[in-house]
Amino acid sequence: MRFGIFYEHQLPRPWEPDSEQRLYADALEQVEIADRVGFDYVWEVEHHFLEEYSHSAAPEVFLAAASQRTRNIRLGHGIVQVPPPVNHPARVAERVATLDLVSGGRVDFGTGEASSAAELGGFGVDRERKRAMWQDSLDAITRMFVEEPFAGWHSPYLRMPPRNVIPKTVQKPHPPLWVACSRRETIHLAARNGIGALSFAFVHPEDAGKWSRDYYRLLESEECVPAGFAVNANLAIVLPMMCHEDPAEARRRGALGAAFFAYALAHYYGPSKHTPGHNSIWGNFTKDGPKMGAQGTDPLAGALGSPQQLIDLITRYEAAGVDQMIFVLQAGPNRHDHICESLELFGKKVLPAFTEGREEREREKSSRLAPAIEAALSRRSPARRLSQPYVIDEDAELSRLTHRPPPTPADLLAATRKRARLMGRHLLSRLVATRSDEDLTRWLTPGRQRLLFTLMARSFQPDKAFGFQGTLEFRLQPRSTWTIAIRGPRARAFPGPARTPSLSLTLPAADLLRILAGTANPAALLVSGRLKITGDVTLASRVAEMFGGPSPY
Amino acid sequence: MRFGIFYEHQLPRPWEPDSEQRLYADALEQVEIADRVGFDYVWEVEHHFLEEYSHSAAPEVFLAAASQRTRNIRLGHGIVQVPPPVNHPARVAERVATLDLVSGGRVDFGTGEASSAAELGGFGVDRERKRAMWQDSLDAITRMFVEEPFAGWHSPYLRMPPRNVIPKTVQKPHPPLWVACSRRETIHLAARNGIGALSFAFVHPEDAGKWSRDYYRLLESEECVPAGFAVNANLAIVLPMMCHEDPAEARRRGALGAAFFAYALAHYYGPSKHTPGHNSIWGNFTKDGPKMGAQGTDPLAGALGSPQQLIDLITRYEAAGVDQMIFVLQAGPNRHDHICESLELFGKKVLPAFTEGREEREREKSSRLAPAIEAALSRRSPARRLSQPYVIDEDAELSRLTHRPPPTPADLLAATRKRARLMGRHLLSRLVATRSDEDLTRWLTPGRQRLLFTLMARSFQPDKAFGFQGTLEFRLQPRSTWTIAIRGPRARAFPGPARTPSLSLTLPAADLLRILAGTANPAALLVSGRLKITGDVTLASRVAEMFGGPSPY
Repeated sequence: MRFGIFYEHQLPRPWEPDSEQRLYADALEQVEIADRVGFDYVWEVEHHFLEEYSHSAAPEVFLAAASQRTRNIRLGHGIVQVPPPVNHPARVAERVATLDLVSGGRVDFGTGEASSAAELGGFGVDRERKRAMWQDSLDAITRMFVEEPFAGWHSPYLRMPPRNVIPKTVQKPHPPLWVACSRRETIHLAARNGIGALSFAFVHPEDAGKWSRDYYRLLESEECVPAGFAVNANLAIVLPMMCHEDPAEARRRGALGAAFFAYALAHYYGPSKHTPGHNSIWGNFTKDGPKMGAQGTDPLAGALGSPQQLIDLITRYEAAGVDQMIFVLQAGPNRHDHICESLELFGKKVLPAFTEGREEREREKSSRLAPAIEAALSRRSPARRLSQPYVIDEDAELSRLTHRPPPTPADLLAATRKRARLMGRHLLSRLVATRSDEDLTRWLTPGRQRLLFTLMARSFQPDKAFGFQGTLEFRLQPRSTWTIAIRGPRARAFPGPARTPSLSLTLPAADLLRILAGTANPAALLVSGRLKITGDVTLASRVAEMFGGPSPY
Repeated sequence: MRFGIFYEHQLPRPWEPDSEQRLYADALEQVEIADRVGFDYVWEVEHHFLEEYSHSAAPEVFLAAASQRTRNIRLGHGIVQVPPPVNHPARVAERVATLDLVSGGRVDFGTGEASSAAELGGFGVDRERKRAMWQDSLDAITRMFVEEPFAGWHSPYLRMPPRNVIPKTVQKPHPPLWVACSRRETIHLAARNGIGALSFAFVHPEDAGKWSRDYYRLLESEECVPAGFAVNANLAIVLPMMCHEDPAEARRRGALGAAFFAYALAHYYGPSKHTPGHNSIWGNFTKDGPKMGAQGTDPLAGALGSPQQLIDLITRYEAAGVDQMIFVLQAGPNRHDHICESLELFGKKVLPAFTEGREEREREKSSRLAPAIEAALSRRSPARRLSQPYVIDEDAELSRLTHRPPPTPADLLAATRKRARLMGRHLLSRLVATRSDEDLTRWLTPGRQRLLFTLMARSFQPDKAFGFQGTLEFRLQPRSTWTIAIRGPRARAFPGPARTPSLSLTLPAADLLRILAGTANPAALLVSGRLKITGDVTLASRVAEMFGGPSPY
């Protein structure tokens, strides 16, 4: 088991003129302590425009500063946003390599796509293409690390002629790769790409075993084709943490920060509207907060406690096969001195329980995985060598870059479908925006229900179901019930209850319309008690996007 | 007078596995010394793919590392490449602000466009639009610093909806702005934009007075409309430096590095062909070097000397009105221990000669300029406030971003003209590539000479002449002479010599064709003795682009 600390650089309003400077100075001091007491990693996010939630917009700068204040701690990008409209892949390769140089090879390179509307809309990243951008950029960037020269790129997302991208990393072939897993299914993606899974999905220790088994089973299977030129087999999970000898004091010091973290996350990643420079998420939180806090701390509360409680909790995660625990201490209004005390105490009383024999265990794991990793790497297409030296010709390169081929029929069809889907969503959202609950219930006549569920079934997106098979039952209040049965790539709707539903949702008819329009968040409806669920809870959060609605990820 | 040191992170081949790591570690140690002995600035370039010449691809990372090893020295981006295809303007604002936070407000923000074929072709930046991109991005970035929220952008180069770009800088309204002046005329652009001029053009002390007078005259005139929300009135020049009590030793230690610097610069910014991952610039330099070294050190040699020689030289620049001397020590094969010794000696023996009364002089300068600066700032369009709160709507933002208006007739005409110009250049370069000097001389019959000079005159680009008026005489060997007279925006060609030419070029007819085709560099022809010049030397380097040929900048 390895240990990390995690930074969003949260800054609840109101802000003082020196708030951001203090935030950064405190964080650097905390990282210095973490390094001294034996933490293995500091992870920092890259987020843009997410006021209050994350003021960490240039992690390459913060981590570079941290590199000169520390000796051993690894510097983790958790994560870099790799879609080219945000960061040109060559710029990513350059900054990762430069950080690796100034830190003497201490970089871990986490990657991701971004998923808030604030970021995607701000940089013009199409939500439906961002996963493809991630995969494409990761391939290009890892080749920039190892190819001399990088042999060039020609994809729908990046065009670049051959160049020697310098400097190169200290770690060879490149720093360990990770991917952010905002939803747990992405852990499968990580395994198939042979890279570390940074799970932000607050997995319970009881569920962690399943995810760890899935991860290693896939990573050792033939489905694993590494995204990089080395495999990083590690599963890390992120949890809020605060440590104090008195468990009640640990909770007092950490609970509000953890609850604000979850609240602000829901603000930016749910359907709430954000008004730049204008919202006060902290203000709203203190109004809504107590309720959220009480409900919200359950899965998170585990890491707010005494050293012995933390040892017990971590032991359960270790037994479940988790390789790294990453702790969020800097969250919401959590105090710098409390964070420093927690880190010191953790280093003194908790860490030593997990270090004995650790390197031996890690060596064993490496040997066990070695044959599978070797086999996986042989499946990855190798670094390219140009068949003949490439001579730079600016004019020719520019005209190749600016010339775009005409769209194919498939492109046009996809664009038309997308426009139709957006239009449907738009009409639905106008409908729900202008009518009361009563109006909407009346509007949803039996005939319209049939139309709605038939359209939902027709719009079923198998790739968003992650292999799910079974029946979904919708108990619409006041009085109608519909079922959608999913088998293979097809879904079929029929009126009435299901015999053994995989998931049953009970909710006002109006709220179903709101979920499909993307203006209501199932998680928020669940917290407020308007939505009741029997069955697989995580499935519920995917209902909208399974049927062509917007994804919160 | 203030003092800076300057980093390209040069690394001549051959490379060892740890060469880049050592290069960076040494540089950090040098910066620590510079800070301790009283240097005011460390400047770092941002260059991409320029193997051997510059391994400084992520200066935000290096400067952030330096921030934690130093106390007072200012951290200068010299420069950030601001065309959006290289760095998204929001990413630039973010990284500059973050560096300002971790350094406690020590950032100077130099800006530029990039101009090597390796970089422009690599990122797909159109040379003819990069100046416009620079101006546009600078306006957007400075607004991101001061507007809360940034009110959005809609230009041919950047589209972005309103967002609050965070974090904000420590220095208010933002760090001092500069622009790279690879050619001396850009000093006028700096003045008109109310920003510092970082002159890389190796100005002689005798010429510096004129440039300084021009700079301050324009900056204090009504032509100055600040690019930022504060004015930075400073002129800095960059020179190679090495200091030793024995002037001959200083020269021995520094001359080769300075010569390599100039040689590698000419390689990437001249018409030489670069083959990524393949060239050895150092190898070619050691073959061509001695000659270059001898000729090349003239304007540079001044800052290789004893403390007293440096004091004398700097005094001349100070008298000419230069505000900052920026020294290149890390160049070519220059040794780390020599650089450290130079910095120590400079701090001990040279710096003290310029610090007495310096703050008083700077205060006087500030008061003298204050009224003009106030007037200039009142001409800048102010920070914007949204008339009503803007609510983020990802779908609407994405469709606005991806919808592009059809090209206007003016766009189409410009594109056609550009294509014709490129085609002409292409035909010319094919001609010169396949024929010997004798063939070319024969090919250039009197009739074709008339056609060529008439076309040159017609292609005259007044904006590339920077207000030049006068006559250019071309003495083509073996025996014909042509003159082009420039008056206002027009040029006229006629056979025969000029009465009082502003510039007279004597060169083989074949070489004129090569210059116009962009395959020969006037500077290189000058060094090799094939081209002889009477008159304004800097005008000669602009001849090709004044008549529609390629610009080396």
